[in-house]
Amino acid sequence: MVNQPKIIHYLEAPPQYPFQGNTKVRMRILIGEEDAPTYIMRIFEVEPGGVIPRHEHPWEHEIFILKGRMRVRIGEEEYEVSEGYAIYIPPNVPHEYINDSNETVIFICTIPKQKK
Amino acid sequence: MVNQPKIIHYLEAPPQYPFQGNTKVRMRILIGEEDAPTYIMRIFEVEPGGVIPRHEHPWEHEIFILKGRMRVRIGEEEYEVSEGYAIYIPPNVPHEYINDSNETVIFICTIPKQKK
Repeated sequence: MVNQPKIIHYLEAPPQYPFQGNTKVRMRILIGEEDAPTYIMRIFEVEPGGVIPRHEHPWEHEIFILKGRMRVRIGEEEYEVSEGYAIYIPPNVPHEYINDSNETVIFICTIPKQKK
Repeated sequence: MVNQPKIIHYLEAPPQYPFQGNTKVRMRILIGEEDAPTYIMRIFEVEPGGVIPRHEHPWEHEIFILKGRMRVRIGEEEYEVSEGYAIYIPPNVPHEYINDSNETVIFICTIPKQKK
């Protein structure tokens, strides 16, 4: 229903857990393929010790960190990010998320619907 | 440089202030047209008493509230939103933001690059 407004608290969105087999990672779709025409919005919660292992795909990510701290590897570079950081990950670049802190990290991760 | 990663804290991004003549509204572009291929990410800070008046355009918004509380009017409906809410505003639907609280509200607002 692309022409309908949607208002949702993230905790109302059903969690996908574990996320792709990662038992310390929870993902919720906030604005999905059926809601919006161009790109979708998800939220991730990564518990202490949680990792989303290195992977790549032909579409980009736009991310915003809401809480916590993690390391992000993009290509051969590593960055430490925390609340208030925005991250752009280009298409076809391997990336990995590592929460080696003592706190759950929460971030928004958007992706285009059109998987190039 | 669509093929380059970008990592930026929102306070590093230069503010556009006042935003479209609204003296209590500050906007920063986090991931811009030159950074990303499909959609862009902005952050808004709306001070107490700040308003972004009713307007409409042929592209959608996907929003996530980081802090504070505000009223959003979408079409003829009004919603109260606060930290943790995601909002989808469809294309061509009038919308308005009203911060009548005592606290600055901060939200992410993404838009497609392709202005239909």
